[in-house]
Amino acid sequence: MKGKFIVLEGLEGAGKSTAHQAVLAQLKKSGIMDIVMTREPGGTPLAEKLRHLIKHELEEPVCDKAELLMLYAARVQLVENVIKPALAEGKWVLGDRHDMSTQAYQGGGRQIDSHLLDTLKKTILGKFEPDFTIYLDIDPVIGLERARGRGELDRIEQQSLDFFYRTRQRYLALTQNNEKAVIINAEQPLEKVVADIQQAVEKFLSFAK
Amino acid sequence: MKGKFIVLEGLEGAGKSTAHQAVLAQLKKSGIMDIVMTREPGGTPLAEKLRHLIKHELEEPVCDKAELLMLYAARVQLVENVIKPALAEGKWVLGDRHDMSTQAYQGGGRQIDSHLLDTLKKTILGKFEPDFTIYLDIDPVIGLERARGRGELDRIEQQSLDFFYRTRQRYLALTQNNEKAVIINAEQPLEKVVADIQQAVEKFLSFAK
Repeated sequence: MKGKFIVLEGLEGAGKSTAHQAVLAQLKKSGIMDIVMTREPGGTPLAEKLRHLIKHELEEPVCDKAELLMLYAARVQLVENVIKPALAEGKWVLGDRHDMSTQAYQGGGRQIDSHLLDTLKKTILGKFEPDFTIYLDIDPVIGLERARGRGELDRIEQQSLDFFYRTRQRYLALTQNNEKAVIINAEQPLEKVVADIQQAVEKFLSFAK
Repeated sequence: MKGKFIVLEGLEGAGKSTAHQAVLAQLKKSGIMDIVMTREPGGTPLAEKLRHLIKHELEEPVCDKAELLMLYAARVQLVENVIKPALAEGKWVLGDRHDMSTQAYQGGGRQIDSHLLDTLKKTILGKFEPDFTIYLDIDPVIGLERARGRGELDRIEQQSLDFFYRTRQRYLALTQNNEKAVIINAEQPLEKVVADIQQAVEKFLSFAK
């Protein structure tokens, strides 16, 4: 079987780390052992430096377009230097966030013009996209409560609740009726979330084979 | 008189620092005292951090698109947070490089697809552009010799001579028959270069008034 690119998406506190373990376990159970893990923004030396610039407070306000361009700079570096070479070698790639995060947070949350977003995506990434996206859906109030329990929130996590509601709405719009995505109800008890994820991965694998 | 944005462009070693002094002197002679100086990439706290990432060797090859996106991230941050506010206050801005550098180095030198460049420029900067560009034209062999005399060359300055010839060619194509630009022969003796620059600025001011 050719390598595939699976991505986990969702708001802060949706349980991406738990989901990550569940996906990994399910892939290994199916005999897929050579898995490259990525996170975005980040995942290469340059992209991690950009992640730091994006996530931390600076001595000046960061304009929306600058944030967006840094996200795409980090993404294209990761895609060209890590993801595409791994897939070409037949490896699987499991991503903690990818382009859908930018569509949801910057497009939905920050309300950046969708023409600008589409143009950037098309000119920078071309037709490259994940084979399968697992979106963990959660009410921002519950998600942020969980994230706060883990410690201080970063620059993006400090946005207003409205920002996160708009982000969630965009996530739902992007995943509903999307053949290459599944929505997992992340408000359920942990065991049920894990079971749903494993079932979704199993189904994807049965088609991917 | 409304504030204007004047930019100095040219290859390494073309004499931008000398030109900078000459332009400043000429502006002050004309009673323009409130001048904001910028350099690109850079000129804001975030843009200077991006400059460092762009200019220095990293533990991985930087793909052309990532470099381009970082350049535009730095540029839009500078334009929105520094240049536009200064012009709005009636100040003048004197820039050490601006978008023409990207057109020449990334478009000409690196031969990045011109559609990608045009699209980025248009979506990120819109119609914003310098009021006047002074391009210091020099043969790369002479320019690089001068730059080498100043010390070690950075990641971009280490490109092949072909790269710089393509860059120069693009610079010439962008400035020839361009009403908002002037070409200064930077291979002339210093006093002649300075005199040409001052004359060009004087002419621009007589129209700008």
